[in-house]
Amino acid sequence: PQSWDNKVYRVARKIKKVGQDDPRRIVHGLKVGLAITLASFLLFYTKPFDLVDQQNGIWAIMTIALIFEFSVGATLGKGLNRMVATSSAAALGVGIHKIAIRSSGTNKAGRATVIGFFVFTMGAICTFMRFVPALKPYDYGLMIFILTFSMVSVSGYEPENWLKDVQDRIVTIIIGSVIAIVVCICICPVWNGEDLQNLIAKNIEKLGNFLEGFKDEYFHKGEYFPKSEDGQPLDNKPFLKGYKSVLTSKSSEETMANLARWEWQYRFGFKHHWKQYVKVGALTRECAYKIEALNSYFNFEFQAYEFRSKIQEQCKQICSETGKALKELASAVKTMTKPTSVNIHIEKSKVASRKLKLLLDIILLEDYNLREIIPPAAVALILIDVVPCIEKIANAVHELAYLAHFKTPDSILSP
Amino acid sequence: PQSWDNKVYRVARKIKKVGQDDPRRIVHGLKVGLAITLASFLLFYTKPFDLVDQQNGIWAIMTIALIFEFSVGATLGKGLNRMVATSSAAALGVGIHKIAIRSSGTNKAGRATVIGFFVFTMGAICTFMRFVPALKPYDYGLMIFILTFSMVSVSGYEPENWLKDVQDRIVTIIIGSVIAIVVCICICPVWNGEDLQNLIAKNIEKLGNFLEGFKDEYFHKGEYFPKSEDGQPLDNKPFLKGYKSVLTSKSSEETMANLARWEWQYRFGFKHHWKQYVKVGALTRECAYKIEALNSYFNFEFQAYEFRSKIQEQCKQICSETGKALKELASAVKTMTKPTSVNIHIEKSKVASRKLKLLLDIILLEDYNLREIIPPAAVALILIDVVPCIEKIANAVHELAYLAHFKTPDSILSP
Repeated sequence: PQSWDNKVYRVARKIKKVGQDDPRRIVHGLKVGLAITLASFLLFYTKPFDLVDQQNGIWAIMTIALIFEFSVGATLGKGLNRMVATSSAAALGVGIHKIAIRSSGTNKAGRATVIGFFVFTMGAICTFMRFVPALKPYDYGLMIFILTFSMVSVSGYEPENWLKDVQDRIVTIIIGSVIAIVVCICICPVWNGEDLQNLIAKNIEKLGNFLEGFKDEYFHKGEYFPKSEDGQPLDNKPFLKGYKSVLTSKSSEETMANLARWEWQYRFGFKHHWKQYVKVGALTRECAYKIEALNSYFNFEFQAYEFRSKIQEQCKQICSETGKALKELASAVKTMTKPTSVNIHIEKSKVASRKLKLLLDIILLEDYNLREIIPPAAVALILIDVVPCIEKIANAVHELAYLAHFKTPDSILSP
Repeated sequence: PQSWDNKVYRVARKIKKVGQDDPRRIVHGLKVGLAITLASFLLFYTKPFDLVDQQNGIWAIMTIALIFEFSVGATLGKGLNRMVATSSAAALGVGIHKIAIRSSGTNKAGRATVIGFFVFTMGAICTFMRFVPALKPYDYGLMIFILTFSMVSVSGYEPENWLKDVQDRIVTIIIGSVIAIVVCICICPVWNGEDLQNLIAKNIEKLGNFLEGFKDEYFHKGEYFPKSEDGQPLDNKPFLKGYKSVLTSKSSEETMANLARWEWQYRFGFKHHWKQYVKVGALTRECAYKIEALNSYFNFEFQAYEFRSKIQEQCKQICSETGKALKELASAVKTMTKPTSVNIHIEKSKVASRKLKLLLDIILLEDYNLREIIPPAAVALILIDVVPCIEKIANAVHELAYLAHFKTPDSILSP
């Protein structure tokens, strides 16, 4: 009936939206399909390597399905982890197996006990090591290490074709990893570093948008209670909500920075300073908390209009200058170009902030009701407080520009 | 030399700390070791199942290493995903293989093309589906589906022992999953739902600690600029920093809630309302943003003492009542007991908040300098604003208590 059609249509639209939001996802799907097909042709149909037993080719396919991730950083991280962990764990497993044979000879029960002891101990220790924060980048490797070590030492219990199988598997896993990494890098690669850069830039830009929008909306016209021009509640304005996502972006920034570390030498040819990106992100978030406080003053009903108009010039000045500074910082991070006029905007906002402080000192309070003037006065105070925050972000971006050798913009080179 | 000793000692201390921070991690390591050893004894040494070829026993070990996670929810989620995905993908792979044989007969190249086409298509589609938000809980299943489907259809290209191998693998993977799940649940289980509950409770408690601490520190004695009693900067007081982690706990709460969904029927015997926990967490975070704003007023140098002392009684009242309310809510969530006196505290804080509003209306401002009185006045305004926040948290906890059938405390039952 109708409702079923509707449901199917809704689901289809949702799936379509997933692709529209980021078309790289569709490309990623095709890349994974391609890598698996490539591996199967290579190992099953064309038989280029006589050294590998055909049925072991499935290990290459398994490896591709397990390690092929959306971004280059994640794929490289998992691929390198997988190759190193498999090889070392297999070597250790063979060694343990030799020890077991030497210590117990033909006594099968004894051999099983020795192997079981080692498997238990290694499994327990490596699993525990996965909780050590410093080993987080090698988490996948540790898991593969446990897996391979246990598999190799246990399957050595019945050693028919055993060593050959182990060798074949290592070779096919390496082949699978290489195919996955090559396809991931060579066809429309998704660099985590780039995504991180864009995220940080976008977050800074969102704060800039808020401050510029705040200026127009909060100090708008002569109304007692600020409303947007089209009469809608201010909460619906997208630029006043955008910053909300900055408040909670910490974990995605850190994840990206950790994965981007696998990429640096491949993409940029020099050590890229992901920690500095995370620092810029953290300072941006600090500033976003202040903006959250600012945002809460939209909702107060009492806002002394006359008082507000006295301070509004300086407040507007701060908003627009810091907004401009943030937007320039955002585009600097995005395009990896040195920011040029940021310091000018910050200086201007500092001047405005100083003037605002003086103004707050000399305003006479007799005529006002305290509850009415607190919201605009608190807004003024938060704005004064925002300026050093922006300066910190700017300093961190300058440091980043220095560390990561941002380009000097053309306009300076050709005056 | 000395420095090496030091380094080893430092590393050892760090590893020890990982275990001390959460001793369940050590238990988890032992559990994984045990599960792998169990599986190897079962499949390699004792041979209870004649139906499984011995070398296929490694699939059980592999499964355990891949799906055994720290919490029951994660292990169950991965285990169920793995079992369902493996079985269905294997069935489909066998089907595709039959189609390929029927359509191309003995033409090996034709068969390879048909299989290759299906592998590519399924790989691409399933990989893309992993981005659909609604399928996130089945992400691991989709990966395993791609893996198994490709492996089964490709390895069917040389069908010697092929079907038997596929069956063996499904059986061993199911055995491995079951062992992992049983060990995970039966030996010192770590329930995600419990961890989530504790996290939410702890976050609420942290806010309560802040508010109570703020009362004593900010309105402390007669100093012009608030300092802590022992002369240390206030930033060093742990209860004034604790709330910071609440600001960024969104992603861990959501992850836990998603994993906890796999647990409910096993632990609680009824549908547990993890969404409501996430809602309480989100409201707590909203409140934490306000507290971040409050915290920033510690750092203002000008704070009119005389003015502050006029409003301090009501402010202190709000802090202490909301602090008590939060602490009671925290213990209610933690112990799954209905909160009893929360509403009384909230009513008291509302009364204080109303009184404070009146007070702000009648205070005469002639004698004051605006810049000096803004910080304490803004603090007062934020505190007024915090009260409805706390009320929202309380309402959400009450709803949770109703939905999740919290116990009625004994003190009411036996008056």
